[in-house]
Amino acid sequence: MPVPELPPPQSSLPEAVTRFGATVLGAVAARAHDTDAVGGPTGGRPLPGPPAGLPFGPPATAVPPTAVPVTDAPGQGVGLERLLRGPHGLGTAGLRLAPREERPVTPAPREGRPIPGLYHHPVPEPDEARVDEVSRRIKAWALDEVSLYPEEWEEQFDGFSVGRYMVGCHPDAPTVDHLMLATRLMVAENAVDDCYCEDHGGSPIGLGERLLLAHTALDPLYTVREYQPEWADSLHADAPRRAYRSAMDYFVRAAGPSQADRLRHDMARLHLGYLAEASWAQQDQVPEVWEYLAMRQFNNFRPCPTITDTVGGYELPADLHARADMQKVIALASNATTIVNDLYSYTKELDAPGRHLNLPVVIAEREGLSDQDAYLKSVEVHNELMHDFETEAAALATACPVPAVQRFLRGVAAWVDGNHHWHQSNTYRYSLPDFW
Amino acid sequence: MPVPELPPPQSSLPEAVTRFGATVLGAVAARAHDTDAVGGPTGGRPLPGPPAGLPFGPPATAVPPTAVPVTDAPGQGVGLERLLRGPHGLGTAGLRLAPREERPVTPAPREGRPIPGLYHHPVPEPDEARVDEVSRRIKAWALDEVSLYPEEWEEQFDGFSVGRYMVGCHPDAPTVDHLMLATRLMVAENAVDDCYCEDHGGSPIGLGERLLLAHTALDPLYTVREYQPEWADSLHADAPRRAYRSAMDYFVRAAGPSQADRLRHDMARLHLGYLAEASWAQQDQVPEVWEYLAMRQFNNFRPCPTITDTVGGYELPADLHARADMQKVIALASNATTIVNDLYSYTKELDAPGRHLNLPVVIAEREGLSDQDAYLKSVEVHNELMHDFETEAAALATACPVPAVQRFLRGVAAWVDGNHHWHQSNTYRYSLPDFW
Repeated sequence: MPVPELPPPQSSLPEAVTRFGATVLGAVAARAHDTDAVGGPTGGRPLPGPPAGLPFGPPATAVPPTAVPVTDAPGQGVGLERLLRGPHGLGTAGLRLAPREERPVTPAPREGRPIPGLYHHPVPEPDEARVDEVSRRIKAWALDEVSLYPEEWEEQFDGFSVGRYMVGCHPDAPTVDHLMLATRLMVAENAVDDCYCEDHGGSPIGLGERLLLAHTALDPLYTVREYQPEWADSLHADAPRRAYRSAMDYFVRAAGPSQADRLRHDMARLHLGYLAEASWAQQDQVPEVWEYLAMRQFNNFRPCPTITDTVGGYELPADLHARADMQKVIALASNATTIVNDLYSYTKELDAPGRHLNLPVVIAEREGLSDQDAYLKSVEVHNELMHDFETEAAALATACPVPAVQRFLRGVAAWVDGNHHWHQSNTYRYSLPDFW
Repeated sequence: MPVPELPPPQSSLPEAVTRFGATVLGAVAARAHDTDAVGGPTGGRPLPGPPAGLPFGPPATAVPPTAVPVTDAPGQGVGLERLLRGPHGLGTAGLRLAPREERPVTPAPREGRPIPGLYHHPVPEPDEARVDEVSRRIKAWALDEVSLYPEEWEEQFDGFSVGRYMVGCHPDAPTVDHLMLATRLMVAENAVDDCYCEDHGGSPIGLGERLLLAHTALDPLYTVREYQPEWADSLHADAPRRAYRSAMDYFVRAAGPSQADRLRHDMARLHLGYLAEASWAQQDQVPEVWEYLAMRQFNNFRPCPTITDTVGGYELPADLHARADMQKVIALASNATTIVNDLYSYTKELDAPGRHLNLPVVIAEREGLSDQDAYLKSVEVHNELMHDFETEAAALATACPVPAVQRFLRGVAAWVDGNHHWHQSNTYRYSLPDFW
């Protein structure tokens, strides 16, 4: 089997899961504590405990998490007038879970600055109590449940701060249990990407096989009795599959069947994207800009924002999710978040061995632009995607005044903003080029 | 762009779309004509006309199609007692659209014999009037709408008899328009498989890029205004993409959003399966049997039976489709149909250049069995999948007595049977090994 061993996670998890600057203070004036107990849902779908037989149990002590005060109670919907007003005239401020004008943010000292000219919405620092608890639990899961890395790398795993990332992206999660659904999946997705696709053990050769077999940890095989046990055993054969299997097991127990089906579909898209990118790498080929953008709509954060309803403890009905206008909104938002990754990881990828495709690199190569001009053009591509997302989301909110749709759109917008904040703040890995 | 040109279709379309034996008479005593007009739906969801601006219009003359008399009117459901009775004790005879005991079949002289010991259900010959009309229309679509092949190959395209295939698999389609939805997709899927993946122009190299770009004909790109036109133009750049784009355009206009989303998901699975198979081909590697079976659950007929509701003019609700027990039934049925393809195409693939993976070949190689023993073991694998499908379908029918579920299960069973019949009858391409 050409499946590589798990590399050291401190160097392997890609840009999206990495260490958050140590000087973050995170004091946000307007946040208030709510009263839900960790592990005891006070809103949304009740979550089951961990799977029987796994060593990781609920936390011994309840930590009172804080929650961003959402002016509209989750699931209650908002009036369209509220939803569509906003200081920027795009009509989308109300789609945010924490509208800026109603939740003044006390700027916290932090590392990193936003990319000049990048259209984005600043958000408060993630709740520290939640970050601490999610970070503690995700480490225990990685060590005790899926053996993602050797114990001596525990401290380094803490440094990735995937807990901070996911708390920031899901401000309306009713409990830490809900946040853990997203956090396990994010860790698992990054483990698969890195161990199978990227430099740390990955390769384009045999990638189709590896990704398909890993995909069966999400979308199970149904075959004859003689061969089923070998497949079941294979899901424990390496860290990526162990992580996928366990993360999906938790997710399926918390989600409705259509929500699980949606995630499987988005993960199939992600794997197709990996394989397209790998085919260019194997041929040392730089695609056309539009081809790169098409690939990047698949090799994309999409599986993360689209679980916002499950993480929020409610369900966007399948027929509303499948609407063409909703699919367009999801694609635009996910594409914007993904180009954010290209832009913040630009200098890091330039320093890495080999040629790593990202939007500025592809534009420079294909359109004969300087590195600076190509980068600045990529910022404009991002901004247009963001504006289009907000315009289309506002139109959908008007066309479909259903509470679950309104909340889902706010959840996607919150994910977009939290994702930007995490990238911007992460000076441990990211630094901006000297283009301004 | 490493996308190959379309090869001659007469040698390129794989086993699933090929010429039907010329001596088929197809007289079936118990069939009766219904009164719907071609192009004028008398049941199910009304279908739109062809897309504006395309040269292919509705047929000039209405041909009265015949329909298999379905004892239970479409969409009306059946009593569970009826549904679960059956001569074989598996409780699934009632899942068939045309229960054998109520629709005696006058055996028609035909070429081909079933594989000895293969568990299957004989079905009547497809209705000849419908076959003729679908065949006429699919040829016009291939020539006039998507330029699938040069005009001089028209006669050879007729010989593939994909119309016969699809009419046989969808006996409850209310009109020929509905049948065309399935027929266009089947032709398009085979064009992509053959031109991108298989020997006739295909290659594992660059396949990830080609399949992803083709997938955007099904699952559209949403990007910035500068690059969107180049993507839109790319959908006309080769026959596979032209076929995908057009077939999906018709489908989306006839289907509900969740039905379209389901098809996109199944097609993403299919493309992942192609890429896993390609990774083995590139490494000249024979997988383990369970690995092959996992790949074959993705490189699979699944996108065909799962549109049975759209082709039937009704909709299985998304939440019922997503149920774990329904997903299991669909996977088992689709896996059985796919192993049927492996078994009937065995001698053909042995004669082809290079090593073509199929279940008997993989079992022989991996388990050290003779060709004969490996083939006979593959028949048993198929039979267990079929029995499991029927058992699980009967359990689901009992657990979920909803008319759309009952009809969908009957539709999937009809597809399984029609698929077997088409393979068995197709002595133009298939011959059985001398193992009995």
